[in-house]
Amino acid sequence: MTMSRPIRMGMVGGGRDAFIGAVHRMAASLDGSMELVAGALSSTPEKSIASGLDLGLPEDRAYPTWQAMLESEAARPEDDRMEAVVIVTPNHVHHPVAKAAMETGFHVVCDKPLVMDAQQADELVAVRKQTGRVFAVTYNYTGYPMVKEARHLVRSGAIGEVRKVIVEYNQGWLATPLETTGQKQAGWRTDPAMAGAGGAMGDIGSHAENLVSYVTGLGIAEFTSDVTTHVEGRSIDDDTSVLLRFDNGARGILTASQVCPGCLNDLRIRVWGSTGGLVWHQEDPNTLKQTSLEGPDRIHHRADASLSESANAMVRLPGGHPEAFIEAFANIYRGAAAAIRDGRDDGASYDYPTVEDGARGVKFIGAVIQAGGEGWTAFREH
Amino acid sequence: MTMSRPIRMGMVGGGRDAFIGAVHRMAASLDGSMELVAGALSSTPEKSIASGLDLGLPEDRAYPTWQAMLESEAARPEDDRMEAVVIVTPNHVHHPVAKAAMETGFHVVCDKPLVMDAQQADELVAVRKQTGRVFAVTYNYTGYPMVKEARHLVRSGAIGEVRKVIVEYNQGWLATPLETTGQKQAGWRTDPAMAGAGGAMGDIGSHAENLVSYVTGLGIAEFTSDVTTHVEGRSIDDDTSVLLRFDNGARGILTASQVCPGCLNDLRIRVWGSTGGLVWHQEDPNTLKQTSLEGPDRIHHRADASLSESANAMVRLPGGHPEAFIEAFANIYRGAAAAIRDGRDDGASYDYPTVEDGARGVKFIGAVIQAGGEGWTAFREH
Amino acid sequence: MTMSRPIRMGMVGGGRDAFIGAVHRMAASLDGSMELVAGALSSTPEKSIASGLDLGLPEDRAYPTWQAMLESEAARPEDDRMEAVVIVTPNHVHHPVAKAAMETGFHVVCDKPLVMDAQQADELVAVRKQTGRVFAVTYNYTGYPMVKEARHLVRSGAIGEVRKVIVEYNQGWLATPLETTGQKQAGWRTDPAMAGAGGAMGDIGSHAENLVSYVTGLGIAEFTSDVTTHVEGRSIDDDTSVLLRFDNGARGILTASQVCPGCLNDLRIRVWGSTGGLVWHQEDPNTLKQTSLEGPDRIHHRADASLSESANAMVRLPGGHPEAFIEAFANIYRGAAAAIRDGRDDGASYDYPTVEDGARGVKFIGAVIQAGGEGWTAFREH
Amino acid sequence: MTMSRPIRMGMVGGGRDAFIGAVHRMAASLDGSMELVAGALSSTPEKSIASGLDLGLPEDRAYPTWQAMLESEAARPEDDRMEAVVIVTPNHVHHPVAKAAMETGFHVVCDKPLVMDAQQADELVAVRKQTGRVFAVTYNYTGYPMVKEARHLVRSGAIGEVRKVIVEYNQGWLATPLETTGQKQAGWRTDPAMAGAGGAMGDIGSHAENLVSYVTGLGIAEFTSDVTTHVEGRSIDDDTSVLLRFDNGARGILTASQVCPGCLNDLRIRVWGSTGGLVWHQEDPNTLKQTSLEGPDRIHHRADASLSESANAMVRLPGGHPEAFIEAFANIYRGAAAAIRDGRDDGASYDYPTVEDGARGVKFIGAVIQAGGEGWTAFREH
Repeated sequence: MTMSRPIRMGMVGGGRDAFIGAVHRMAASLDGSMELVAGALSSTPEKSIASGLDLGLPEDRAYPTWQAMLESEAARPEDDRMEAVVIVTPNHVHHPVAKAAMETGFHVVCDKPLVMDAQQADELVAVRKQTGRVFAVTYNYTGYPMVKEARHLVRSGAIGEVRKVIVEYNQGWLATPLETTGQKQAGWRTDPAMAGAGGAMGDIGSHAENLVSYVTGLGIAEFTSDVTTHVEGRSIDDDTSVLLRFDNGARGILTASQVCPGCLNDLRIRVWGSTGGLVWHQEDPNTLKQTSLEGPDRIHHRADASLSESANAMVRLPGGHPEAFIEAFANIYRGAAAAIRDGRDDGASYDYPTVEDGARGVKFIGAVIQAGGEGWTAFREH
Repeated sequence: MTMSRPIRMGMVGGGRDAFIGAVHRMAASLDGSMELVAGALSSTPEKSIASGLDLGLPEDRAYPTWQAMLESEAARPEDDRMEAVVIVTPNHVHHPVAKAAMETGFHVVCDKPLVMDAQQADELVAVRKQTGRVFAVTYNYTGYPMVKEARHLVRSGAIGEVRKVIVEYNQGWLATPLETTGQKQAGWRTDPAMAGAGGAMGDIGSHAENLVSYVTGLGIAEFTSDVTTHVEGRSIDDDTSVLLRFDNGARGILTASQVCPGCLNDLRIRVWGSTGGLVWHQEDPNTLKQTSLEGPDRIHHRADASLSESANAMVRLPGGHPEAFIEAFANIYRGAAAAIRDGRDDGASYDYPTVEDGARGVKFIGAVIQAGGEGWTAFREH
Repeated sequence: MTMSRPIRMGMVGGGRDAFIGAVHRMAASLDGSMELVAGALSSTPEKSIASGLDLGLPEDRAYPTWQAMLESEAARPEDDRMEAVVIVTPNHVHHPVAKAAMETGFHVVCDKPLVMDAQQADELVAVRKQTGRVFAVTYNYTGYPMVKEARHLVRSGAIGEVRKVIVEYNQGWLATPLETTGQKQAGWRTDPAMAGAGGAMGDIGSHAENLVSYVTGLGIAEFTSDVTTHVEGRSIDDDTSVLLRFDNGARGILTASQVCPGCLNDLRIRVWGSTGGLVWHQEDPNTLKQTSLEGPDRIHHRADASLSESANAMVRLPGGHPEAFIEAFANIYRGAAAAIRDGRDDGASYDYPTVEDGARGVKFIGAVIQAGGEGWTAFREH
Repeated sequence: MTMSRPIRMGMVGGGRDAFIGAVHRMAASLDGSMELVAGALSSTPEKSIASGLDLGLPEDRAYPTWQAMLESEAARPEDDRMEAVVIVTPNHVHHPVAKAAMETGFHVVCDKPLVMDAQQADELVAVRKQTGRVFAVTYNYTGYPMVKEARHLVRSGAIGEVRKVIVEYNQGWLATPLETTGQKQAGWRTDPAMAGAGGAMGDIGSHAENLVSYVTGLGIAEFTSDVTTHVEGRSIDDDTSVLLRFDNGARGILTASQVCPGCLNDLRIRVWGSTGGLVWHQEDPNTLKQTSLEGPDRIHHRADASLSESANAMVRLPGGHPEAFIEAFANIYRGAAAAIRDGRDDGASYDYPTVEDGARGVKFIGAVIQAGGEGWTAFREH
């Protein structure tokens, strides 16, 4: 494979102490999809500059603020200037940066959930349309080859008409009031002012929603939900469950919890149709189980000769040489970088999540949180 | 261990072509808990008699009807007559047989769900109290040693205060309209006149409810549910999901489906508390996973030296010599037989499910089916 | 299924404190294959009688010695007398009892390893031929339905010509000098006078050899072995490994160890042929993995519609209702009882292990122990 | 973490159609450990140059031959010239390149097995000592954090004195005569002139040997082996098994096969000591099972708070965000790059495999192949 030119990216957020910024950088560089040329890596100007220098940025591109970065980079010669802004800040900063970046002429790669509310989401969708920029949202779990194979199998009718979906995303790291200890990740993720309306629902439930949509292509028609905060003093949900009804009549369960001790990053999806089923688990991402009416089960492995083109296109290593989180994340970057090179914001063709996917996710989070707790029946037999 | 005298049992239902009757007989005989001395094994008198002879019953105890069995057996000398009636018929026959059996002086072992509706349930509870008979309901999954260990760990505080429960019972055998092919099991289970209000919810959801109750001891305070029939022409639910709120504030998800191709008898429960969690899967019943806030996970094995007394009391074989479905079922028989020998209907002490457990289950089934579909919010973002 | 008449069995060994005797009784009674009518359950006459009474035997059939049992039972009327002698003693007692039983006219079910050495083995083979009795050796692991499916798949060419076999039987219970604590099972199993030449090799390696032979049908042509005792003061091997060459050129590894802490009863076999492979694990006995040159893997479940007749014949419960150790053991009894009913010692037709299988096992144990340690090459690069 | 300066690397081999070269480049760049500045990527000069340009090398550093690369790079200014030569050619090219590179002043990263025979190995060890260069051999599997945890647990006594090791490396890709189809990887790996004496033993058995040595620290004292070629016409082993005796009296089994259909890259190791055991599987690399005399088992997860410093130092992502093959490979690069920066060839401190590790591996391969087939005992009982 001839290596394509890396896209020049400037990062907002992701400085010292951040977690996801480093993941983005590894994902961007794994295949040489993008290279870091500029940064406004912290909301504190001194820390922002210091973090940029840490990462080897030249002094004049380790910016104190994202506003400075947009302005200065726009002034650089075209073949040298930053091309895409990568946004890895807490959620409340996504909207202003993304909007300004597009309006200044830059493409955008933005972490999820896209923004704080439906209004912000609609605005970004509109701005993206006006500016014609490429906009990718890093719902990274859809980057896994076996998720793409699941999508292929569902879409090609291998399990018949979809009837039931169970998608779960359980973690345990917020089972205690970690945010009271000064832990930075817990701090902003449990603060509605920075995270938005959803806690568990926003942070990880949004991935679950996106995964269902990606694999099945079904729209959610209605739902009933339970939105709970188990840890005392916390002002955001840490455990949310939703019953789903899809457009085609299929039923679903979506649950997202951060208070399940022992669950690390336990995202899993099961889809059953009229003639078969599929099971995939993020912590064991290199296999996909396919079931049928009669048995036996089939275990597909990443890189099996039998995989679909869409899955195999995302494979770097032979079977048995496991790929994992960073590689899946890198697949999003690969698609976004190719779209940027070609100047076409076309998530379907380049296989990355779009601003419209992000907007739908934000609206779903909001609707679930708002509706949580309606329509319950008492039961007192004990 | 000195072998105790087997209880003399008469079976109603379970003749030729039945499935669960043979399981009851194996479970009863595995430890010599009960021995078959009489039978009214089919609703067709000739078939009933023929089935009894098949099983080696003497001609005068292979009865044409259960009424004949009750009457004749009651007339036999006390040290020879049947002591317990085992009811393994379709659900609609449970109530009349159980009531008459108790009123004629016999103890009862009855399959689940107990009866057709709340009124019948209340009546059996009352009759049992009046007659003082032993009454066991074969919620057989609570007979597994590792379920008992899970109960022990929850009850002893090993995972802290329970916050979240997910219990699932998925099967795939009714993914097609099997009942239209003459398959007997499918026939009565999808016929509300024989099965009661619940299809998937009644047949297997009832096990799920019982398992949660057994392991956690929590009462369900309220719920919201979705009751679905996917297979065209079917007049009973084949896929039901319920969101639960427990007395202590814990949340839960219960789902029971018979239209998940590839799921065989996929009952599993996960319970998380404030400091740890438990995972158990019926198809892999000899282990129990215990998780904690910090790791590592612990995998308990049936017969580990560290198990609780209540679990170890139900173990027949050393570790690594797997036990399974019949052995767990036999544990229910072991408890019921001991209670009958001692003449004490005390499910807590003898560790078997009681008529009250059965009644609660019937009421829960009814409430879920009745409420299904209330309180939903539309979502149209796609 | 019309129930066949149970064969009347008399048991030698298996009294108080024994483990395997109770397993034999559960296995014999699960399907009503055999019923206990007589016993000489201990080498201590008083204990033998007491153990018989414990089990509900009448006083005149709870014998003080096996010699007394053979003599008295032979004198009973034909339709009442014991038909088969079940031998569940330590190994050194197998030969005299089996020989005398056959010569007195009784059929034999004998635990493994068959006898102490090749000479005893040859003698039993000869006596069986002379007397025409049915003789079954309880290599119980071949009773599992999925082992039968593995055999079927290999024999029908599903994986091509067999090239490589790995069979392992690892336990950990003898990792400490348990025999010095008075533990009875450990005592005789580590005493060459009661166990024979092989420790781990005899007790569990013999199962491994039998499993390979049953599944593949291949004969062992030559081998090289390492026979080790890790626990100080022990006079028998507790860890033995063997490299195998089979008649057809296939290669194999057989290992049996009792000093692997955490291994419970970890018997597993993998067989690869020119076009596919099979994996089976005794502690997860209801599935069988089949692999191929191209993928995907196939997971067969006990009771899948696609299973062979030989496997399905041994299934009692629908898929997902797990069967396990006792059920597999009961399958050996089912075959042996049928053969006895028909008076034909034909292991191939009735699917039970024969005295010839037992004899081959004894000779293999002896050869491995004797040859252990020959032909090694020094390596000193560290 | 402040990012350290990447080491400037020149690659020999790894051009178009190669597999492992791309892995090295991803591993080198994942953390910014090394950056590609020069290449002689093919033995065909035109292809070598074209491959270099494909990868974005400037024209004057896309060399036609490795000799040209060494000469030209040595002439560049010190702060610009290549610092390390990465050798990813077929095995027969390792020795001349590595020797010349060190003698020209460059550090070396070399794929395994190190060289073709013991003499070459000894020579490289000597040259490295004379030149004082850093030399890392990419036994990449020891880069996994959970392998490091296993090493830590063994070395710290968590399982007692090691008694038994089973290490397996099974693949299936050479189950057919793939080398006759023109497949390049199969071609050189089955040609003794390019691969060396060992086929399966050299290509993957060498990893197995290294893994045992890394985890246990034990030296192999003697062995007996079976070296087999199953596929007709192949002139090198495709299936080799070895029984091992270690210095401390522990026993082992090592098997390496490339004719096991369905095995992808199935490297696994089990180690049992006097008080516990460890199980690790390369295809599920984020967990490590630890067993004990009494149970329960413990499942350690990468990034558990309880892990050792040596394991945690190699972790990039939180628990549940799986890491895999490339990340483990990158850990070798991280160590080697740090050693090069500091100018100290100290594998123990920087945690990478040394030329001495490589030399021991080559000698072990040679000894096993040479001795295969000695000391067998005939067995003809069937």
